[in-house]
Amino acid sequence: MEDKDLHFMHIALEEACAAAGRDEVPIGAVLAGPDGTVIARNGNRTRELSDPSAHAEMLCIREGCAKAGAQRIPDCDLYITLEPCTMCAAAISFARVRRLVIGAPDPKGGGVLHGGRFYEQPTCHHKPEVVCLEMPECGKVLKDFFSA
Amino acid sequence: MEDKDLHFMHIALEEACAAAGRDEVPIGAVLAGPDGTVIARNGNRTRELSDPSAHAEMLCIREGCAKAGAQRIPDCDLYITLEPCTMCAAAISFARVRRLVIGAPDPKGGGVLHGGRFYEQPTCHHKPEVVCLEMPECGKVLKDFFSA
Repeated sequence: MEDKDLHFMHIALEEACAAAGRDEVPIGAVLAGPDGTVIARNGNRTRELSDPSAHAEMLCIREGCAKAGAQRIPDCDLYITLEPCTMCAAAISFARVRRLVIGAPDPKGGGVLHGGRFYEQPTCHHKPEVVCLEMPECGKVLKDFFSA
Repeated sequence: MEDKDLHFMHIALEEACAAAGRDEVPIGAVLAGPDGTVIARNGNRTRELSDPSAHAEMLCIREGCAKAGAQRIPDCDLYITLEPCTMCAAAISFARVRRLVIGAPDPKGGGVLHGGRFYEQPTCHHKPEVVCLEMPECGKVLKDFFSA
């Protein structure tokens, strides 16, 4: 873990809580640049946008790439409150994200530490550095949402 | 294989060729509705849009879901000239696409018949019917592009 990790993960948690307020699955993400600035921050918007791919981290990657005018953002780090699904794990790899910081593991739908473990496959051509913080708050916002 | 499959795959091939003309990786896709209409058709636009997720089939899913005003399009079939990558395989599952018709397998980057084989994972919650046509034209447009 790096010093800045908790700082960015708390911003991602704010986005997760904001998503819950929109009745979206409360997952949040932050894309951070090499100088420690927030390039993009978002929460899930699959309902709002009628887009099953509008996961928090996918929206951040798309915004970050659009701002960079490039398909690849190799100097950026991504913070996500929950382990990315298989779709987002692959998008993160395609974008050449440098470092992926996960708030909590997702045994049910994760694609990095679970399921197809995309970064361990021969069909994966870039593996980011992966750190899992195991922060109870990141799972709690989801549990509270689904029990409500 | 169903009678309509070659019809839709040839439209997808037109989109692949159009993508090559834009200097994009020549993969094309068609989203077909239950009445046999084309709901969306597109080719890769990752360069044009500076979006690593702008694969042909992802663009079709986004357009189809936006038109339906829903995250799920369970009465739609998707035709793709090349086996979807892991990212798109998962997006297809999330959108609850009924049937997935593949023009050619992709041992290097595919995520359905290769790599993490998402539809075989316990983290996959909807598996479409999958058909691979093994059409040489679908691979040839890619080989020609990368050898040029």
